[in-house]
Amino acid sequence: MAKEIFVENLADIETNFPQWYTDVVKKTQLADYGPVKGTMVIRPYGYAIWENIQRELDTRFKATGHSNAYFPLLIPMSFFTKEAEHVEGFAPEVAVVTHAGGEELAEPLAIRPTSETIIGNMYSKWLQSYRDLPILINQWANVMRWEKTTRPFLRTSEFLWQEGHTVHATEQEAEEETMKMLGVYKEFAENVLAIPVICGRKTEKEKFAGAVATYGMEAMMKDGKSLQAGTSHYLGQNFSKAFEIKFLDKDGVQKYGYTTSWGVSTRLIGAIIMAHGDERGLVLPPKVAPVQAVIVPIAAKKGGVMEACAQIKAELEAYGIRVKLDDSDNSPGWKFNEWEMKGVPVRIEVGPRDLEAGNVVLFRRDKCEKAESPRQGVASAVCTLLDEIQKDMLVAARERRDSRIVSADTLDGILKGVEAGNFVKAGWCGCRECEDKIKETSAASARVMCDELEHETCAVCGKKAVRTVYFARAY
Amino acid sequence: MAKEIFVENLADIETNFPQWYTDVVKKTQLADYGPVKGTMVIRPYGYAIWENIQRELDTRFKATGHSNAYFPLLIPMSFFTKEAEHVEGFAPEVAVVTHAGGEELAEPLAIRPTSETIIGNMYSKWLQSYRDLPILINQWANVMRWEKTTRPFLRTSEFLWQEGHTVHATEQEAEEETMKMLGVYKEFAENVLAIPVICGRKTEKEKFAGAVATYGMEAMMKDGKSLQAGTSHYLGQNFSKAFEIKFLDKDGVQKYGYTTSWGVSTRLIGAIIMAHGDERGLVLPPKVAPVQAVIVPIAAKKGGVMEACAQIKAELEAYGIRVKLDDSDNSPGWKFNEWEMKGVPVRIEVGPRDLEAGNVVLFRRDKCEKAESPRQGVASAVCTLLDEIQKDMLVAARERRDSRIVSADTLDGILKGVEAGNFVKAGWCGCRECEDKIKETSAASARVMCDELEHETCAVCGKKAVRTVYFARAY
Repeated sequence: MAKEIFVENLADIETNFPQWYTDVVKKTQLADYGPVKGTMVIRPYGYAIWENIQRELDTRFKATGHSNAYFPLLIPMSFFTKEAEHVEGFAPEVAVVTHAGGEELAEPLAIRPTSETIIGNMYSKWLQSYRDLPILINQWANVMRWEKTTRPFLRTSEFLWQEGHTVHATEQEAEEETMKMLGVYKEFAENVLAIPVICGRKTEKEKFAGAVATYGMEAMMKDGKSLQAGTSHYLGQNFSKAFEIKFLDKDGVQKYGYTTSWGVSTRLIGAIIMAHGDERGLVLPPKVAPVQAVIVPIAAKKGGVMEACAQIKAELEAYGIRVKLDDSDNSPGWKFNEWEMKGVPVRIEVGPRDLEAGNVVLFRRDKCEKAESPRQGVASAVCTLLDEIQKDMLVAARERRDSRIVSADTLDGILKGVEAGNFVKAGWCGCRECEDKIKETSAASARVMCDELEHETCAVCGKKAVRTVYFARAY
Repeated sequence: MAKEIFVENLADIETNFPQWYTDVVKKTQLADYGPVKGTMVIRPYGYAIWENIQRELDTRFKATGHSNAYFPLLIPMSFFTKEAEHVEGFAPEVAVVTHAGGEELAEPLAIRPTSETIIGNMYSKWLQSYRDLPILINQWANVMRWEKTTRPFLRTSEFLWQEGHTVHATEQEAEEETMKMLGVYKEFAENVLAIPVICGRKTEKEKFAGAVATYGMEAMMKDGKSLQAGTSHYLGQNFSKAFEIKFLDKDGVQKYGYTTSWGVSTRLIGAIIMAHGDERGLVLPPKVAPVQAVIVPIAAKKGGVMEACAQIKAELEAYGIRVKLDDSDNSPGWKFNEWEMKGVPVRIEVGPRDLEAGNVVLFRRDKCEKAESPRQGVASAVCTLLDEIQKDMLVAARERRDSRIVSADTLDGILKGVEAGNFVKAGWCGCRECEDKIKETSAASARVMCDELEHETCAVCGKKAVRTVYFARAY
């Protein structure tokens, strides 16, 4: 399938970011369009990134006491009506099964857009006593939300995600869980994806349908737009009352539990592409890169080159590095382009002249820099370099982002700020009208609210500000 | 949720196997019924078994050169009609989405019952040249088949599985792949699940809808019935012609590829329950047991007992053993019952008297035998014991099965054989009428055909036998 790849075919990242994104997704074979409008096929190269994301997150979920389970895909439509805000938020996007086994169903069934309702229904059966609490369950699953405008990874009718659903005896415990999982996401985003994130509470307008409070983490893409990379919801007793999630407490009284839910999805792959990519294509953080190092033989027919390559491959594998030896017929230059476009963090060039001098050449994708390195101990050097790349990518992304956060005191200031590709901090009076006004004027939405109040007046109405809010255009 | 568990509530395995199965599934919290008829919730204890199965299989798939990918859940109904046998086999079981996003769809969409069609459609786009071959992709996914009679794990409208889909340049390579993956399944079933399997080709009646040849592996359950535990299909050019999976070969000629598909599902959890379980409940093979060893303190309040338990837990964890310390308020006897029912391979009893003598007691679930073991080096002893249990369970299961394979020369012999809970080998003339006659008379179906012809005449019509076939009642 190699012939599809030509670096020169990538659109220019500076002048046509949307097309550059689509080109990268298609040409690096991360994903393809499915036959049904709005659906996506995650190809092996993209899916391998997802597997790395899953492994890293799953380890963190288990370390924080969660177990995985699996709940049914199909949800009776009547479940949605039990929580008023929830049905309003999700009903318009639901895909509905009306026929099965050759017959029309008595009740239409929704393909899960999210599983609070069906999981709540099961928890109400399982939960009896305070001894059963907390319930800490996560699910890895596909979900479906019928969207009008779709883009691979960012917004597709079906996507893969994990959704944690927990029940606690007290409000405080549930709030702690909500914040703990937000913290897990933040640590993961920064240390694994090398993406700095801004975390905070969402406004009422932007919160999850049915939540008391939604906390989001927002990542800046290279075009200055924000991508919501994960959310953690404190659901209070909204779902426990709708689904009778009750327990007999120590004091002999029947009480409703307090629930949370939290999730991240295959969107994260979109975030990786747009937070790190450059004019040559993908730049993958080593921890999620399917191939961490690629070995390219130079003048492969010269004596000893292929042997050295095979030997180096074995040495790297012994270090646990995900390594590929590109022994195809293509020219070295062609291979350089291909693996740069695919974002492989380190390239090892092995040529006869370098070998004679006892060296190889190491190329790091993030900075596009080459350096000679002793052939002896190359595996250890690559390990160190991968760690360095992982750290440097976060530093670079943070510097990039921090340089593009501005403050504004007026509606015009917000507009100018986002038009220049910034996140704009501004004061907000807390009313929906002012939030809507900002959206209408600048196409920017309230991403998250800051913990600290940094502004005295609302940028729109001039009244007293109750919150400082990050505004940005968003995916 | 502990209170749901009472060992005395399990139905008798000898006299009421079906109820025993249901009791075990529910009371050990492997699974629960979902709100929609025929659906199942896989609870954390059951899902942890699935995670272990996934990890073991996924490693084997990757070691044989396969990558994972993800294809859409929804398939245009028109895709099914492209392969004539396939649509006939699957259309009656399909669940259909007719509405989405508040509107009726132009074309109804099927929830995948299996993905040959949609994957074939994508492969036709990706495949260009012989250089792109073989395509070796696997998918972990949920699928849906609307069944009238359902049972947790064995037959549910939705289930989890993996489906491998490969394309090859030649018939021979595709046939080799089909047999290689059958071999992977067999090795996995025996060495990981401790379940001996009989592998062979299926009859035309029993083969996958759209295959040229289906190979199955059959496992004997404790009631003598057979469970199809995995299948590998050689699809010839049936799907490549239906979906235009073509490539330009070395000789410059456009050719159709040869495809295969192969899968196992959460059914395997049902197989584990019924191949190994006993009157006390589950008996889990160590390699898939969520908890491999449970530590039960005896007279926990006596000095040193809880400290020793915590210490032993740490030692076992350092050996990579999945261990649980049951420090709940329940009595030791209650704990014994619970963890025996849950099938934990090894129990470590830690009491003050044993500790004084420098010992602990090790109980192995498979043989329900206790033995003293030195406190010093207990982790290493448990490791050895787990290996021994893993091997002994396969030996025991094989002896059990082999003692229940009989041969028959008449229809009546087949009936008597299966009624006594056996697999019956019998000669078959190869015609559908005789196969149907056996099914009508004895409720036994042709499980797989033997490679060797061991019978001279067909047990039904008395004509020359062309095949020796395993007949059994089946799940």
